[in-house]
Amino acid sequence: MTRLFNDPSAFADEALEGFTAAHQRWVRPVTGGVVRAAGTPAGQVAVVIGGGSGHYPAFTGLVGRGLAHGAAAGNVFASPSAQQIRSVARAAHGGAGVLLMYGNYAGDVLHFGQAAERLAGDGIDARTFAVTDDISSASPEEPAKRRGIAGDLPVFKAAAAAAERGADLDEVLRVAGHANARTRSFGIAFSGCTLPGADEPLFTVPEGRMAVGLGIHGEPGIGEEALPTADEAAELLVTSLLKEIPEGVDGPGGQRAAVILNGLGSVKYEELFVVYRRVAALLADAGVEIVDPEVGELVTSFDMAGISLTLTWLDDELEELWRAPADTPAHRKGAFTGPEPEAEPAAGAAGETILLADDDETVPEASEESRRAAGIALAALTAVATTVDTHVEELGRIDAVAGDGDHGIGMQRGSTAARRAALTAHDLGAGAGTLLTRAADAWADKAGGTSGALWGTILRAVGTALGDQDKPTADSVAHGVSAASAGVQRLGGAEVGDKTMVDVLVPFADTLAELVAAGTPLTDSWDRAARAAEAAAAATADLLPRKGRARPHAEKSLGTPDAGAHSLALITRAVHGVLLNHH
Amino acid sequence: MTRLFNDPSAFADEALEGFTAAHQRWVRPVTGGVVRAAGTPAGQVAVVIGGGSGHYPAFTGLVGRGLAHGAAAGNVFASPSAQQIRSVARAAHGGAGVLLMYGNYAGDVLHFGQAAERLAGDGIDARTFAVTDDISSASPEEPAKRRGIAGDLPVFKAAAAAAERGADLDEVLRVAGHANARTRSFGIAFSGCTLPGADEPLFTVPEGRMAVGLGIHGEPGIGEEALPTADEAAELLVTSLLKEIPEGVDGPGGQRAAVILNGLGSVKYEELFVVYRRVAALLADAGVEIVDPEVGELVTSFDMAGISLTLTWLDDELEELWRAPADTPAHRKGAFTGPEPEAEPAAGAAGETILLADDDETVPEASEESRRAAGIALAALTAVATTVDTHVEELGRIDAVAGDGDHGIGMQRGSTAARRAALTAHDLGAGAGTLLTRAADAWADKAGGTSGALWGTILRAVGTALGDQDKPTADSVAHGVSAASAGVQRLGGAEVGDKTMVDVLVPFADTLAELVAAGTPLTDSWDRAARAAEAAAAATADLLPRKGRARPHAEKSLGTPDAGAHSLALITRAVHGVLLNHH
Repeated sequence: MTRLFNDPSAFADEALEGFTAAHQRWVRPVTGGVVRAAGTPAGQVAVVIGGGSGHYPAFTGLVGRGLAHGAAAGNVFASPSAQQIRSVARAAHGGAGVLLMYGNYAGDVLHFGQAAERLAGDGIDARTFAVTDDISSASPEEPAKRRGIAGDLPVFKAAAAAAERGADLDEVLRVAGHANARTRSFGIAFSGCTLPGADEPLFTVPEGRMAVGLGIHGEPGIGEEALPTADEAAELLVTSLLKEIPEGVDGPGGQRAAVILNGLGSVKYEELFVVYRRVAALLADAGVEIVDPEVGELVTSFDMAGISLTLTWLDDELEELWRAPADTPAHRKGAFTGPEPEAEPAAGAAGETILLADDDETVPEASEESRRAAGIALAALTAVATTVDTHVEELGRIDAVAGDGDHGIGMQRGSTAARRAALTAHDLGAGAGTLLTRAADAWADKAGGTSGALWGTILRAVGTALGDQDKPTADSVAHGVSAASAGVQRLGGAEVGDKTMVDVLVPFADTLAELVAAGTPLTDSWDRAARAAEAAAAATADLLPRKGRARPHAEKSLGTPDAGAHSLALITRAVHGVLLNHH
Repeated sequence: MTRLFNDPSAFADEALEGFTAAHQRWVRPVTGGVVRAAGTPAGQVAVVIGGGSGHYPAFTGLVGRGLAHGAAAGNVFASPSAQQIRSVARAAHGGAGVLLMYGNYAGDVLHFGQAAERLAGDGIDARTFAVTDDISSASPEEPAKRRGIAGDLPVFKAAAAAAERGADLDEVLRVAGHANARTRSFGIAFSGCTLPGADEPLFTVPEGRMAVGLGIHGEPGIGEEALPTADEAAELLVTSLLKEIPEGVDGPGGQRAAVILNGLGSVKYEELFVVYRRVAALLADAGVEIVDPEVGELVTSFDMAGISLTLTWLDDELEELWRAPADTPAHRKGAFTGPEPEAEPAAGAAGETILLADDDETVPEASEESRRAAGIALAALTAVATTVDTHVEELGRIDAVAGDGDHGIGMQRGSTAARRAALTAHDLGAGAGTLLTRAADAWADKAGGTSGALWGTILRAVGTALGDQDKPTADSVAHGVSAASAGVQRLGGAEVGDKTMVDVLVPFADTLAELVAAGTPLTDSWDRAARAAEAAAAATADLLPRKGRARPHAEKSLGTPDAGAHSLALITRAVHGVLLNHH
């Protein structure tokens, strides 16, 4: 279990601070993560990677010459926010565009995608690439649904080495795709990890058993078997990967492969070596030549006990990129000849802090009516934060039944940050639209994860509907809530019946719109919509989550409501109280 | 716990094999361990390190340019044998002598010391150096009694970097002493590790508690406290080390130190970074400048949960050596300019297997009488191996009460190897002396650990007393057993009453000598001596082990006999059976 921490909610930030202090030769801190200490060489495509904390050396440990130019570090097991990613990418930008790379998880796809859009707004050409190496997470027919695990390293490295050699953004993206198409991983696990401050492990595997294909956050695997010997484990891993040799790879015989035997945290080095001994023999028997193997901890999950095997099937191009030198805190290889080219004096270089939207000290002009409405919005956001505070443990408990138990903490981080940002905006004289938009960015930025992004979308949709000029009306509020509902469905990819907040948001928005359209006053309409939300939230207890979502114990959740649905219902009720006060 | 293994008794060998397969760029295998793939540059002092397996990257992971020239790998948590160390040292020898370096543990001191003597016999100038950085293992007044932990790295590196710069053996030894005198470590632990194949952890720490100063094999610490926060842990470690700044270090203020924050296995990277954040701040507050810090896993104990902090107080000489480049599987730093100098074509280079004594295919001439006695010795060693086999689990169980529970396995490995070597020698026509000497080397070599070395001493003493020419007599046997008793006391450093095999060996040898001197026939004398041994073994249940020995649960052992004493009594009885048969 994780034992050494201070305030659990500060864990990821403090770990990043300590990491940066220990590795000043390679990295320097920027808002949201780290970039290379020497900066990105002028005219070089920047490869910016990232993901949740708790997977070291993924992701910050892979920043340095020959590998990533920057890494965004999210909260524990939660995607970095779009703001964090944008900040790191701006600091890493060397004038030739940015490739954002990450493992294929819903939250990361969401946030890196939003970051790319915002970077475009900053005038930076940014593309995204999700690594999908875990063959146990979806069938060969649906490779795009596969998760990214230890295959991150060879795919990141291929793209970054191409950038190092001067490839342009299109070419770096092509190389990433090519490396990913030839990279396959398969993993097994024996025990779960306990997150900082949690009382219970995120999930458990019965003593003496092995979970096959389990994800690095405890996502469901494809089966459970008796604990194998080291040789049997090697045979399972190698056999599974040899069953799915990618198209275009020669063979049988004569193939070359980069091989990574990765430990997740508490399967230790000697055990990995005992397993590797058999892996090497089996690959040799199959006629596969091993190139520059890596045996160690490259993508971890705290002290989770498990291992994975990754093969990148090499052609001449990929072999050259895999063999290329690299010098990062956690992955060093070969030696560079000559000094690094001069760095682009990029945004945020030389210690400059990048100014993010919610740090702005000015707000757009707003009408008197909108500023008055902003006061009510501030009161509503304050009530939201107080409600979340009151229920934080209950939300965590409910979420732990099926998920990773961090819903309460995430909502608390988000709502607290939103309240703070709203207060700052209010004191600067912001209108309702700006206040809600700033609160939206702060929520998404500080909460991270999928729920952070979705709550950012909700507040932003309502803020956009209200604007800074017009006096908010029942119509404009209902319109904003409907836009929020549509936005959440689109971004989150969930539908009614999937046991998510969508099960509550849709009936809430629909009821509100219907009553307001019928001329019912806002406060009454909201009250009845909140009642519909409460009923819908309770009804999620009868649902099973849609398959494929990151719910380690999906089947156990029958009888328990969805945590995101429940918190949304609580919040609609809290906001009703504020509306009553300002009636 | 350790889950991935095949045959537990083959674990260390298989791990070494896998390690070597994965790291061919840096190392190549030799009998007993590994040496640099490129060999030792001609005329360079070779630094040969080593210790038990289970501590990776200590020790094999630290072999490569700028660091060790070779590493001897013992069994799990057991010293390599003198033969293994000798073999690695011969392969690593570059013509300018060898410095043998290891942590200060009884078994390692014994085996590395014996290896140095044998290397002298091979015409190789070999010195020994034990690292003693763990300040919680003995008082500042007795620094030579301190254990070696993560301070191994900076001390090994200083010596090796000096060798790399052309220092001669005296100078390399001086540098080792200087670095060791300025290196201090302090550790805390939260849980024990489970060795391959064991059902129970080696030791436990109560949930929510911290053992202060616990050794990496579970050796007793100096106290137990409540689980700290990360900041409190950092404060404890830094404060403890700042209390004992070595003589000759300037200050306060203006000092420089190499800093290592080491994780023992399942305290993971992000936790280490959170702790390091505070360590760095506290050292800065104290005016200590941190030079090239290392935060990671450098000396582990499987999945034991614990951390240690090491400071090497630098002067200009040590700073230069600490900053010097290194390129090993687990520790890489900077870059070398120019190719490595040409290697000495040392013994064992280019894949040649070093011929150890027990591989010899010839034996010295022996008399007919001595060859007949050798048959009885073979029968005795066969009975010993069978007896140990029968009692292996009982011995493990007894040893687990106070120690690490490996006594049964170690005795089994040793006695089985001794039987095999005796049979080979017998079939080659060996006399009793050569047969017992070969069996002695095989036992020490394969069993490793302290008991392996002591049993090697016993058989060698008896073999030397019998020789290959004279017909063995009751006198010469009793003389050999007395020599064995004296040798074990000298080597092991234990006295009667310390709850070790000495409590049995001394009365056994004394009774045998007394009766034989009085004219009692050998078989009868042996019978009565064996009875005395059995009584003495049972009486060890009433004793407490001497303080400072590596017995994690010393206090619990009251009421249980000592495992080494018990196995010796069993063996004296088994040998009596053989004597009866050949009466």
